[in-house]
Amino acid sequence: MSSSVAQIPVHKINRAQAFTFEQDVLAVEEPLEIRLGYEADGQRTAKSISITMRTPGHDFDLAVGFLLTEGIVQRAEQIAGIQHCGGQKNVVRVDLQAGVPIDFERLQRHFYTSSSCGVCGKTSIEALQATVCPTIPPTSLTLHTQVIHTLPDKLRAAQSVFDSTGGLHAAALFDWEGGLLDLREDVGRHNAVDKLIGAQFSNGNTPLSERLLLVSGRASFELVQKALMGGIPVLAAVGAPSSLAVELADQFGMTLIGFVRDGRFNIYCGAERLQLSPASVFV
Amino acid sequence: MSSSVAQIPVHKINRAQAFTFEQDVLAVEEPLEIRLGYEADGQRTAKSISITMRTPGHDFDLAVGFLLTEGIVQRAEQIAGIQHCGGQKNVVRVDLQAGVPIDFERLQRHFYTSSSCGVCGKTSIEALQATVCPTIPPTSLTLHTQVIHTLPDKLRAAQSVFDSTGGLHAAALFDWEGGLLDLREDVGRHNAVDKLIGAQFSNGNTPLSERLLLVSGRASFELVQKALMGGIPVLAAVGAPSSLAVELADQFGMTLIGFVRDGRFNIYCGAERLQLSPASVFV
Repeated sequence: MSSSVAQIPVHKINRAQAFTFEQDVLAVEEPLEIRLGYEADGQRTAKSISITMRTPGHDFDLAVGFLLTEGIVQRAEQIAGIQHCGGQKNVVRVDLQAGVPIDFERLQRHFYTSSSCGVCGKTSIEALQATVCPTIPPTSLTLHTQVIHTLPDKLRAAQSVFDSTGGLHAAALFDWEGGLLDLREDVGRHNAVDKLIGAQFSNGNTPLSERLLLVSGRASFELVQKALMGGIPVLAAVGAPSSLAVELADQFGMTLIGFVRDGRFNIYCGAERLQLSPASVFV
Repeated sequence: MSSSVAQIPVHKINRAQAFTFEQDVLAVEEPLEIRLGYEADGQRTAKSISITMRTPGHDFDLAVGFLLTEGIVQRAEQIAGIQHCGGQKNVVRVDLQAGVPIDFERLQRHFYTSSSCGVCGKTSIEALQATVCPTIPPTSLTLHTQVIHTLPDKLRAAQSVFDSTGGLHAAALFDWEGGLLDLREDVGRHNAVDKLIGAQFSNGNTPLSERLLLVSGRASFELVQKALMGGIPVLAAVGAPSSLAVELADQFGMTLIGFVRDGRFNIYCGAERLQLSPASVFV
């Protein structure tokens, strides 16, 4: 098993309420910082040009590919060397040959908000905890597992734009009984979540302490962070979570559910908020 | 029809090589700049804090949701007003009440590369054209449509990590006969593409002028840009493209194919590189 996947214990449940607890594998999500080394005034120096949330592996390819596809280099000969900075596996420094021109103004403009997935991983988990991110308090209400199974169909029924284009991510807010309260769609999954939470915020409804957020895609670190900031105790995703998403959710007391589809789902953390429906069978 | 979808003429083809040319709808992708207005030294001023590629609609919700979920505001009363800047539909300014504290250092660190989808839309298309992005030259080779149908199965067969986690995007490079040359996976779709192109770049194989790039998800503006920078003439996606992805591909001479699955696909631009296989039937 490579470092691109991580093992984690998971509660699995299907429509017949059969319930197992087993090891599962998740895609690892960690920040990679790319630094650009270059000569200025006869001195070699380096500047951080990107932090992206990535799956570890082929990091040197990622760094030079980024430099090519973002227009910083054009030929392999322009690169003098690549290394991990000071043994840090999540920091790669690419040094350019002396004389390779760099347009720093363009870099600044170009990378202002490029690249997916929000803040910078481990460090940011600590930063969030230290400053703004609220821990979700234990919820007295419990959520019936049978309710979870009904959510994806409700999401799809409500996705009017999705029906016509097939190209949009959706985020939907449900109450504890599975009633759909609101839905937003966007080409960017984080935007759909921001639109949904933003509308609730403007109406004075945050923190959304008795709400469930369902997203149509995968659950990344960034989506967990945004749900936490909205005070949402349960995040459910039609797709898989990343390793860092589970870590963040667990640390801040959120219930994280993934693979909600085809009559099954997995509970990655916060299982205490869920109540097995009466038909439940423990396997 | 709202401005969140756009109509576009599309060549559609299925496994029986039935071929139609019809109007289709795509999700619109456009940049939104969020500016934060605040008081400093008794003067009201504003600062750009985010540019994100989004689907137009609910932009005020998006802006205030972003401020909440990124930890800039905590209560609706902290917001003094929201407006489109100078009538620009893609620039929203949110003014905070005087006295609301802002940690600009944290903002800078936090938003350094947060938010999906690369550079800033329309303006950047012009910037790319003016500076670095190469137009793909017409290709003398033609690509048989029957080859396209075979690609998703080859991608899935090669996705070893995907099989175990279900949480990774894949990018694969094929030759003109449908032979799989290389594949990379990542939690970030743009990272998978950078890893794939970066490895080819380091080996001196760019521009990838006789190659096809297949991505497991949707085709965004950012992925088209990265493929263009690698000199790849054909980008195929298992999912949908955005409106801006089609616009960029068309402008730079790239063939863009979407919805490659279930024995069908759509050609959004650059159809001249494709050769219908012998079984073809024109409907």
